[in-house]
Amino acid sequence: MNIKPLGDRVVIKPIEAEEVVGGIVLPGTAKEKPQQGEVVAVGTGEYIDGKKVELEVKVGDKVIYSKYAGTEVKLDGQEYLILKQSDILAILN
Amino acid sequence: MNIKPLGDRVVIKPIEAEEVVGGIVLPGTAKEKPQQGEVVAVGTGEYIDGKKVELEVKVGDKVIYSKYAGTEVKLDGQEYLILKQSDILAILN
Amino acid sequence: MNIKPLGDRVVIKPIEAEEVVGGIVLPGTAKEKPQQGEVVAVGTGEYIDGKKVELEVKVGDKVIYSKYAGTEVKLDGQEYLILKQSDILAILN
Amino acid sequence: MNIKPLGDRVVIKPIEAEEVVGGIVLPGTAKEKPQQGEVVAVGTGEYIDGKKVELEVKVGDKVIYSKYAGTEVKLDGQEYLILKQSDILAILN
Amino acid sequence: MNIKPLGDRVVIKPIEAEEVVGGIVLPGTAKEKPQQGEVVAVGTGEYIDGKKVELEVKVGDKVIYSKYAGTEVKLDGQEYLILKQSDILAILN
Amino acid sequence: MNIKPLGDRVVIKPIEAEEVVGGIVLPGTAKEKPQQGEVVAVGTGEYIDGKKVELEVKVGDKVIYSKYAGTEVKLDGQEYLILKQSDILAILN
Amino acid sequence: MNIKPLGDRVVIKPIEAEEVVGGIVLPGTAKEKPQQGEVVAVGTGEYIDGKKVELEVKVGDKVIYSKYAGTEVKLDGQEYLILKQSDILAILN
Repeated sequence: MNIKPLGDRVVIKPIEAEEVVGGIVLPGTAKEKPQQGEVVAVGTGEYIDGKKVELEVKVGDKVIYSKYAGTEVKLDGQEYLILKQSDILAILN
Repeated sequence: MNIKPLGDRVVIKPIEAEEVVGGIVLPGTAKEKPQQGEVVAVGTGEYIDGKKVELEVKVGDKVIYSKYAGTEVKLDGQEYLILKQSDILAILN
Repeated sequence: MNIKPLGDRVVIKPIEAEEVVGGIVLPGTAKEKPQQGEVVAVGTGEYIDGKKVELEVKVGDKVIYSKYAGTEVKLDGQEYLILKQSDILAILN
Repeated sequence: MNIKPLGDRVVIKPIEAEEVVGGIVLPGTAKEKPQQGEVVAVGTGEYIDGKKVELEVKVGDKVIYSKYAGTEVKLDGQEYLILKQSDILAILN
Repeated sequence: MNIKPLGDRVVIKPIEAEEVVGGIVLPGTAKEKPQQGEVVAVGTGEYIDGKKVELEVKVGDKVIYSKYAGTEVKLDGQEYLILKQSDILAILN
Repeated sequence: MNIKPLGDRVVIKPIEAEEVVGGIVLPGTAKEKPQQGEVVAVGTGEYIDGKKVELEVKVGDKVIYSKYAGTEVKLDGQEYLILKQSDILAILN
Repeated sequence: MNIKPLGDRVVIKPIEAEEVVGGIVLPGTAKEKPQQGEVVAVGTGEYIDGKKVELEVKVGDKVIYSKYAGTEVKLDGQEYLILKQSDILAILN
């Protein structure tokens, strides 16, 4: 992966609905729609009260994130999403 | 439970009105409508002035939370809610 | 009382106008309307610059609070209000 | 006085225009209109970077405050105003 | 001067256009219009990260301030302005 | 380069679409559109809780940034962009 | 120069377009339009986490600043601009 997100940002490879992990299906609701993806790159961490803290998510984690968060980029024909760790809701094991 | 919420987030299994805990009934009002649920997963804690602090709620707690808070997810046919601990109003014993 | 508010929240039992404490009557004004109640449960405290600090109000205190603050809940047929201590204006002795 | 304001709040007894202190008359302007009153109760202080700090105003001080600040209460037939110290502009000696 | 501003507030005696100091004339523009005055009273200082810090302006300083800042008061027939030090742009020597 | 950005700002030389680095093509979407460029000057760093911290990006880095961020300047016939490091999403290696 | 800006403010003497420094021409764009000027006075510094920090810009620096920032004043027939250092984008060497 030749992309390095800054600070508390991560790069996500979105997972299509038909290859959903762990039996989770995300229903269409009037609420904020979460989506799933795999973390492919993480930033160097975030500053919390002056101390640099590693991100909680690691490369390879399957995660649920807020649909309207982040910025889409296309790398070697594949679409990715760059978002902040705070836009990630949970890790799926 | 194969879902791990991040930071100060928790996963709630909502409780239907007909199985309400402890005799509490939440009336329909013009105000923010609270709802009840059971905590099924908690995040690793929140940073407060640079120190990681464990969440107050534990797995198994019955809680009241703000209706419009959080994000719904469906796991193995059951609906859950991922929200921040600050959207939880109280624990019912 | 089988309800435990989180953090800096308190549970208030509202006092009806005809049983007002200490001769205080709250006039109808165009301003924010305060109301009176009795504290029936208090949270574990609030974090202030990284230190947990006990709430100023205690169970049994008669308080004046902002009318539109908080969330109403009904417990065993009695209505209560869950609000943050910062929505409480004063204690009546 | 049987009312104790919380934290950085104070209780003010407004002074009518015809009993104005120290020759100050507050003209009607298009700007925020200040008003005068006497402090009758003060809170326990405010937290500033984790340390509790006493309020600058004392009981008995004549003060100028912003007109639209605070909440009116009526105690034993007298109207009072509960507001935050930060809504007080100056002390009149 | 029998008026003591609170905290980081100062009392200004506005200077009329025809008695402008140091040759500065403030043109009418579509931008925020500054005005000149003399400091007649200063507050006890402001809290910056928990430490009380004296104000930079002193009684007697001629200052330029933002036109729409502050609150007008009339004392012994003279109009004054109470504003925060942060609304003062510069001192004229 | 005779331009020195202040604090946490950097100067970017935008890269045209036809000379895109590393095979990344940024699709036109309804979302915030990122763009690519090369860092040609960096500020002295940013203050994080009172400590000056060097920027993560270096001169020569290829970066993706938010399209609507920053301010365009023209230097010796070449267009540059001055933006804050926080508007840079990722470094391309 | 008989004007002393407060805190993190600086006084700028704008440079007309026809006397632009270093070959930089600032194009008219739909974006925030930067402008050039020379620093003629600087404030005493800004507080960053309780410590007073000198400003980065010095008297004599040629700077690019945001067009709509600051307040215009006229001193001895010359127009100046008082703005905060954070409204300065870069120093031109």
